[in-house]
Order: sequence, then structure tokens, then C-alpha cells
Amino acid sequence: MQQKKEKVIDKLKNDPLMPLRHTAEHILHIAMSLKYPSLKKVMGPPIEDGFYFDFDLDEKVSPEIFDEIEKVMHEIIEAKLPISHKEITAEEARAIFKDNKYKLENIQEIADRGEKVSVYIFGSPESKYYDVDLCAGPHVDNTSKVKAFKLLSVAGAYYKGDEKNKMLQRIYGTAFDSQEALEAHLALLEEAKNRDHRKIGKEMDLFTFADDVGAGLPLWTAKGTIIREEIEKWAKETEEEWGYVRVATPHIGKHTLYETSGHLPYYKDDMYSPMDIDGEDYYLKGMNCPHHHMIYKSQPRSYRDLPMRMAEYGTVYRYEQSGSLFGLMRVRSIAQNDAHIYCTLEQAEEEFLISLKLHEYYYETLGLTKDDYRIVFGLPDETKREKYHGDKELWDEAEAMMKRAVEKSGIRSSDDIGGAAFYGPKTDFNVKSSIGREFAISTVQLDLYMPQRFNLEYTAADGSKKICAVIHRAPLGSHERFVGFLIEHFGGAFPVWLAPEQVEIIPINEKVLDYANEVHRSLRKAKLRSKVNDRDDTMQSKIREAQHQKLPYMLILGGREQEQNTVSIRLRTGEQINGVSVEEFIRIVTNVRDSKSLALWEDK
Amino acid sequence: MQQKKEKVIDKLKNDPLMPLRHTAEHILHIAMSLKYPSLKKVMGPPIEDGFYFDFDLDEKVSPEIFDEIEKVMHEIIEAKLPISHKEITAEEARAIFKDNKYKLENIQEIADRGEKVSVYIFGSPESKYYDVDLCAGPHVDNTSKVKAFKLLSVAGAYYKGDEKNKMLQRIYGTAFDSQEALEAHLALLEEAKNRDHRKIGKEMDLFTFADDVGAGLPLWTAKGTIIREEIEKWAKETEEEWGYVRVATPHIGKHTLYETSGHLPYYKDDMYSPMDIDGEDYYLKGMNCPHHHMIYKSQPRSYRDLPMRMAEYGTVYRYEQSGSLFGLMRVRSIAQNDAHIYCTLEQAEEEFLISLKLHEYYYETLGLTKDDYRIVFGLPDETKREKYHGDKELWDEAEAMMKRAVEKSGIRSSDDIGGAAFYGPKTDFNVKSSIGREFAISTVQLDLYMPQRFNLEYTAADGSKKICAVIHRAPLGSHERFVGFLIEHFGGAFPVWLAPEQVEIIPINEKVLDYANEVHRSLRKAKLRSKVNDRDDTMQSKIREAQHQKLPYMLILGGREQEQNTVSIRLRTGEQINGVSVEEFIRIVTNVRDSKSLALWEDK
Repeated sequence: MQQKKEKVIDKLKNDPLMPLRHTAEHILHIAMSLKYPSLKKVMGPPIEDGFYFDFDLDEKVSPEIFDEIEKVMHEIIEAKLPISHKEITAEEARAIFKDNKYKLENIQEIADRGEKVSVYIFGSPESKYYDVDLCAGPHVDNTSKVKAFKLLSVAGAYYKGDEKNKMLQRIYGTAFDSQEALEAHLALLEEAKNRDHRKIGKEMDLFTFADDVGAGLPLWTAKGTIIREEIEKWAKETEEEWGYVRVATPHIGKHTLYETSGHLPYYKDDMYSPMDIDGEDYYLKGMNCPHHHMIYKSQPRSYRDLPMRMAEYGTVYRYEQSGSLFGLMRVRSIAQNDAHIYCTLEQAEEEFLISLKLHEYYYETLGLTKDDYRIVFGLPDETKREKYHGDKELWDEAEAMMKRAVEKSGIRSSDDIGGAAFYGPKTDFNVKSSIGREFAISTVQLDLYMPQRFNLEYTAADGSKKICAVIHRAPLGSHERFVGFLIEHFGGAFPVWLAPEQVEIIPINEKVLDYANEVHRSLRKAKLRSKVNDRDDTMQSKIREAQHQKLPYMLILGGREQEQNTVSIRLRTGEQINGVSVEEFIRIVTNVRDSKSLALWEDK
Repeated sequence: MQQKKEKVIDKLKNDPLMPLRHTAEHILHIAMSLKYPSLKKVMGPPIEDGFYFDFDLDEKVSPEIFDEIEKVMHEIIEAKLPISHKEITAEEARAIFKDNKYKLENIQEIADRGEKVSVYIFGSPESKYYDVDLCAGPHVDNTSKVKAFKLLSVAGAYYKGDEKNKMLQRIYGTAFDSQEALEAHLALLEEAKNRDHRKIGKEMDLFTFADDVGAGLPLWTAKGTIIREEIEKWAKETEEEWGYVRVATPHIGKHTLYETSGHLPYYKDDMYSPMDIDGEDYYLKGMNCPHHHMIYKSQPRSYRDLPMRMAEYGTVYRYEQSGSLFGLMRVRSIAQNDAHIYCTLEQAEEEFLISLKLHEYYYETLGLTKDDYRIVFGLPDETKREKYHGDKELWDEAEAMMKRAVEKSGIRSSDDIGGAAFYGPKTDFNVKSSIGREFAISTVQLDLYMPQRFNLEYTAADGSKKICAVIHRAPLGSHERFVGFLIEHFGGAFPVWLAPEQVEIIPINEKVLDYANEVHRSLRKAKLRSKVNDRDDTMQSKIREAQHQKLPYMLILGGREQEQNTVSIRLRTGEQINGVSVEEFIRIVTNVRDSKSLALWEDK
């Protein structure tokens, strides 16, 4: 858990808007303190895309005060308050914050660590906005640098995130260096709300949750399962072509397996508590690799068998705090598009490059170009070497090979110091959805350490025993996150091959019902997901409903269509195409489907 | 566990050979006691297909004594010892068995239950074979009725099956009412040994186990996964045609789910110990139904939505004692060909019948006829009514509908009193492999009770709320048991569509290697599982190895084949077909594959 928090902080450090947002939060604090003198500030960090401000106040605030508070904040910005930094002793700090028990607690923690106390000073003592706050910074040098900001929402938040503590109030806001950037961001938030995978998932009935099953454990309904299985089929076909074999392993493993891998104890917080079977601890698997290693080891392997690319859509289980669960995006059961490539050290760089190219192939099929995704290269933080296992030499070797492969791939990449796994460096693929939000979809790793721990041997051409290298890869991430991403990316208007319902046939009256059923049967024969809407309802209402369900094709059938053995097509986009023969419709649509085209109507 | 034991005993009670086998075991005891006067008999029950005899003896015995012991047993049989039964007091029994602490313990247990002690007397006191044994019977009336028998093996066995107790010795044997029947059985055992799914599974590298993963948790290797996925694909395609939808659910659920279903506490012994997540008990699912019920309940349902046939290849986890684990046949992780059909009460009988017909379709595809499978109808034991939940009226209704459907199906069936589940009657499909051994493959249930507990409602045509009926069905059982069955049934020589490797191309020298690779690419294009064997080895050895791997087709390619663009085919059966063009080979073989033919070479 600790490690995750550190990662987020590292990410923020590299965000050029961070100081500005941090300053906006202090401005909010000053404005709120002027309105509510009894308010006790608790904390207020910048976060991705904005900031928040936690405070203790008896009066419950609502977004209705935002206009008034924003007005004061604008005044503070116009006042161009200079911002300065000072280090003081704990004693001095205690005097300044004597009325704020949260700050006093914080000062004690700083003192316990033997550190100096850092404060930031806004304005001069004579200004009515003058404020001194306990803060590690950084900030911009004066308040006028906050060019544009907006308060977004208010919510409850437990002190230190622990539900045993007092419930505080939290205001979320965002800030930018220009009004245009702010407006673009607000428009994105609005669009993201419309494309929210939880909202669309519910409207289209793709997945559900049940209290009696448990939080973070999605149940895939019939339509969602179609999307899931189409993706899985695609991955299986692709991976077969790319030389993979498939395996299937159980969802639990004995403690000894995870002791060998080192996940026990280093990953224990992310795993569920053990089950007792015949007096031994068994764990739900949090990753597939140790199981795959057991299959690798089940036979003697020779250099002739390598590379061996071993794939499985294995479901893994990871503990996430209930507060951080979020729709399909952060769940406790994860069906991974997983594979492990066992190869010689000499093959490793090339295999790693091939894995990167596989990502490219998958993403391009979905219409994503190299502008839409990038690699974040997770490297060890050398100041915290004790967090990482294995020889530094191995790490350097893996890093060098990965670096060369990333360079050859031509995919943009940036380093993330401290972002490595405990057993090696890793490369994350961050993919932008059509509205520009970034999702961490996939991780690829070149692992020279686990093969040693598991003694993953092969017989080399010269007869000697050698340890192989392992590449961990999952280009499509997990079903959960990937479908969540696709829902936002397509706004629910999936390409034909992914659409859970492809064709809705709407007979305009009862007389053409037989014809409608005949067309339906022809479509089913072509494995098209078709249905006849023969409910007692108006045509307009049926079209509206199908449109709402983002159904790619509606076939409106009346007397003329029956006579001519044709269909009149209404595309999801609103476009109308009349008088197409049933055969022609099937030919074009199956072609669109099989080529995974993003268009609805193209005759290749 | 208790329930399972009772079921086995019920089954034996109906076995006409049981008294004879029980008598054979007593004869073994008498013969062994004559050779080893210090031997203490512990117990000796008849079992399916034979009997065993547990005894405490310092000297370790081996199969080398079988000839000698069998000779004495034959003498006892020829002596036609009369067998009589008597009930005596515990006091009298203690006097008889004063030197056998195991019997004394047993007598105490009988006395504690307030029962009379039953003994069986073999011969008269003056006979040298005279024996009195603590035994509930039944037996045949004299030893000459044991027409044929054989001692099979010797093994260690803990007293009362508990590893904390003393290790005893156990001799297994079998007995029949004719020499022919015995010989047929021994031939079957021999054939079964050759077809043992564990032996073939190892030779063909289909699955493996790892100590660090855990007992009873198979790891499916690349080849085994092909078979598994072919079966799954078949089931998915078939079920789509038969009007099913698919869902996907997590492998764990909260305790409340199983409290509603009643599996907690009634099924608890078969489930793993709980995991603690955020202070609540979660269980690995032992069955998929409660999860499916949650999906059913996630939307309001109308009579227009029914029947809703909801399928999932869900992996469930059941506790089995380590001693009863057996290859793929009895495992702890079970990937079920599961589905639940939600329907109205009026549709239930018809839907049940359709489910039986679906079994028929699957089994016939594998070449099994109605002579090869039968239904065992599990009914409640009315003397133990407290074991069953829900109104008797519901049970009777379900039983009547199931009975009518079974009758209409024309599938043979027999009743098994006491074989019902705790929540309703059930029908098990017992299927015979090609060597005549029966496997319990599948269970179908019509369930009127769980829908009430889960309040599985729908809106009827008249607007009222009604509770639906649920049919549980899994025609292909679990991947584990079904593949185990198929391995024995086909002796590893799978039909082409299931064969993990379909074609091996053997170039007779290096000059035709390019041609071999060209043929290979054509086969791969047709999605045939082909490989080129270009190892440095003799052709004879390559053929022998492919034969051993039960590969359906070997293509022997030389200069002539290359010149004529043909292949020379050697079938797994030994048949040779020369001069077939590559196109013709692909056409015939893909046809054999796609029609799931059991033949290797037929031109339909």
C-alpha cells in the first residue's frame, strides 16, 4: 500500500502544474478561513488533475458557497501575494499552530523524524489575506500565477483515511495556467461523465455488482460477457498466430509457491488472507507467473523449446481497500490477458521487442496510434535499494535490454524513478481514450530474477544447464480495466465486432413479422447478433431505444422491403441506407465485423 | 463427508455380488489367520468391484504370498463351510474377541449405541477353518458360492483412515459368481491400466501437478489446454445454438450468499475455510448457482424473458480429503460446463426434457449410444426427511415433472433412494467408457426450492409476481473429469478435432525440408495443428514416437512427394495412403475435424 502512495507522489513531482495547483489550494484555504474563522485546516495536497482541501468545521458546507468563495479566491489572486518559504523549529511551529490539533500532531511527527519544520508564508502580515501554513511545497512565487481555477465538489473524508477517525469535509478543485486549459479540462470532465463506464455499463446492462458477492467483484452479465469473450477470442487468435501456447491453472496455490517467488512476505498486503487446507496455508493467486513456472518446470526443457510463450486468461485476486474500488477500473478480481515468455538471455531483447510490437498491433486495431499511447519506464530508486531484490548487475542488464528494445520500437517513453517492481524494472503502457484521458493498461517486464529463484533451467546447445529469462506481458491488461477503457473510448458505441447486440430488426407492422423473422434467421446463420423487436410499441420508440443502446444497425422492414427481399438500414450514426438486399447487407456487415473495422458501412 | 459415505453404502446394498464378495473377504481372513496366528483382523468390507481386508500384523506381507493364500482359500471354498448368523450380547462378544483390541473397541461402540452384537460363524467348531467374526453381513449361505476370486494388491492403510492412528496392512481382492466374469473383469483392469488417464496424461503431457501448487489442483499444460478449449468451444457453440447466453462471475463470494443458499452450514464440509476481507468471511465458491442467481436478480424479469438459459464455464473449488484425490477424476478445482435455466413452472418439464436431449446430442457426437449411458434418479430417503429442505409438496412436484421428462427422453433410468441433493431430487448421467467402466459425468436438477430462498421473481402475463423454477445442468461435467473420461474412452487416440497434435510432417532428408515447411504453412493456414519433425533422428524412430503420441496423421515426404506436390499419409491406425495432393489432404482432414468425425479418413 505504502509503495503505491509513493508512486503517486513521484508522478506528481514531475507534473509542471503541481506547484500552481498546490498554491490554488492554499488560496482556497485562505478564502475559507476568512468566511469560517473557526475552521481548522487539516491538509490540502495537489492531486492528479487538481487539488483538494480537508478541513474540520462544525458547519456543513455545500457547493452553494462556491461562487462566494471563488470570488474571494480571485481577489487573492489579483492581490499578487508573494509566497515565501521558511524552515523553523518545532517549538516555533507549535506556537503558530497552537489552536490546530491536526497541525500539532503533524509537527510532532516531523519532530519525531528529526526534521526541520517547513512553512510557506502567503503575503505580508499587514495583508488581510496573510497566512502561514505548515507545508513542504513547492509553490509558485506569487498568487497571480494561478491563472484559472474552479471548485468542483465537496465530500466527506475520514481523517487520515481511517474510518475510525473523525469525518472531515473535503473540497475538490482544479487549477490551470490558462483559462483555455481550464475550460478544455472542464469539457473533458463533462464528456467523461457521459462516458463513465459505470453509467454506460448500467444503461447497456454489461456488468453488475451484488452486495452478497462482495465489493469489487464484478458479475459479467450476458451482454458484457459477449464483449469479454470477443476480446478473449481476438487475443487467443492473435497469440496463436504470434506463436503462443495456452495453459490453464487453478486460482489457488500453496504458501510455499509464494515464499519461493518472494510475494510472501513482500506482496502480502495485496493478497487475501490464507485458507487452511489439510493444515497448510493456501492463497488465492495474486498473479499467474508462479503457476506458469510450475508448468515450465514440469518437463526438462532444451534450447530447442525456447522461446516458449505461455498464455492464459487467468483470473487473479488482489486486495484493494474498499475506498479505492471504482467500477471496473479498480477491482478485486482481475481476469488478465497474461503470458510469460521463457527464452534464452540472447533471445530476450528480441522477444521483448516483439512483445512491444504486439501491443502496437492490438492498439492499432482499435484505432489508436503512437500518439495515443506511451511507455512509462519504471526504474528502481537507487536511494532505496533495499526495496529491490537480486543483484544490481542483473537489474542493469535487464534495464539495458529493455531500453534498447523500447528505442527500436519507436514508442514514446519516459522514465519513472521508483516505479520498478520489487523483482525488476518494468514498462507500463499508458493509453489515452478518445477524450484524452490516460489509462495504465498494460505492463511488460523482462525478468532475470524470478527464473533464478525458481531455478528455471534449460539445456543449452553445448549441453550445459542455463537459467532462462522470463518476459511478463499483458497487452490487453485485464478484462475489467480494458472493457472499462473501451466503454469510455467508444462511449458505448462499440465497433461491430465488439457490439453485444449488432442488429435490431423492426417490422413496421404485424404483416411483415414473418419476413422479419426470416431475415433474422439469415443473420443468425451468418453468426450476426440479431434480434426482432416485435413488442407492442411505436416504431419511433423502438428506434429511440435501439439508438440509446448504441446498436450499430436497425433494419426497418415494411411491405416494400418484404416484396423486394431487401432491408432499409438505419445506422447508429443516423445515416439511412435503403433497398439493400439481405445478402448484400450480410456480406458487408460480416466483412466489417471480421476486419474489426471501426466504420459501420464500408465495402472493401 | 458422512453423506458421501452413506451413498456408497446404499449403492453397495443394491449390488447382487456384494454378499459373495463379503464372504470372499472372510475366507481371506481365515486363510491369513492360519498362516499368521498373531494376526489381528481390523475390518474387511466389500467395495465396488471387490473387497479389502485390513489387519494388524508385525510381519510385513507382500504379493509373493498371494499364491499360497489363494490355495488355502480355494480349499475353504471347496470345504463348503456353512455360514450362519447370530446375535449375542456385548459381554459374550468381549469373551470371544478378548485378544483383539480393535474388535473390543468396535464392540464398545455397538454397545454404546444400545445395539445387539451381530456375528457370522463359518463352519462348525471341529473344522480347521472354523471362524467366528464380528460382522453385520450379509453373506452367501456357504463358502462354495464364491465361484471365482483373485487377490490383487497389498497396501498400507491407517486405522480408521486417520493418519494419527497406527498404519495397518490392507489386501485388496475381487470375487465373482463365475470364472468367466472374473476373467473379464481382470482383462478390464488390465485394459484400464493401459488407458489410465494419469499414465496417458503423463505420456502425452496433457496435465501435471506441483507440490507447491497443491494436491488435487491440476495444471493444464499446452496440449491438455487444447483439448480443454476444444471442448469448451464446442459447448459454447452448441449452447449458443440451443438458446443460451453466457455470463462470467468471480470465484469467491461473501458468507451471506451461502447462508441464503443454505450451503452454509449444510455444505460447509465440502467448502474451504473462509478468507477475511474487511472483517467479513468470503468463501471460494463450491458451486456457481448463487452467483448466477445474483445476475438474474440484477434486473427486473418478465415472463417474456423466460426461459433464460445462463451458462458459464465456472471453476468451483471443493474440499476433498487428500486420500480420495485421484488424478483428474477427483480434484479440488473443478471447471464446470455449468448453466442454470430460469423458467416458469409451466415451462419446467419441457426445459428439463430439452436438457436431457442436449446430453444425448453431446454424447452421440462422441459415439456413445443410449446403451452406453443411463440416468440414476436420486430421490430422498423418506425415513431421513430431516436431511432435506423445503416443502414435501415442492419435492413431489419436481420429482413428478422430472420423471415424466426422463420417460419422454427414452433414456434408461433407475432410482437411487437417498441420492437426492439437500434441496431437491436429481438425475445423474452415468456414462460407460469404451472398455465398459462407468463414470458419473453429469447431474441435472429441477430446483423449486432455491428460487424461493433467493426470491427469484418474474412478472407474469397477468402482472402478478411469481417465483421461477431453476434447472441446474452440466452435460459435459467438469473439464477435469470429462477429459479424464475421454482419455480412457479413446485410450489417448482422440478424434481429430480433439487431438492436441493433428499432423506431424516427417521429411525423409534435408533436401525436402523446404517442401515440408511449405506443406506445414498450408496446414497452419487451414488451422490444422501441424509440426515438422526435422530433428536429427531416424524416420523409424520419428514414426514410432508419433505413433506413441497417438498423432492422427503422419505425412512422410520425400523427393517424389515434392515433385508431385503430394503427401504420403500414414494414419495412426497404421493404414498408408499415398500420392494425395496437399489440397485434397486439407479438404478431407478439415472436413473430418469440423464434422467431429470419429474416423480419420472419410470423404463425405
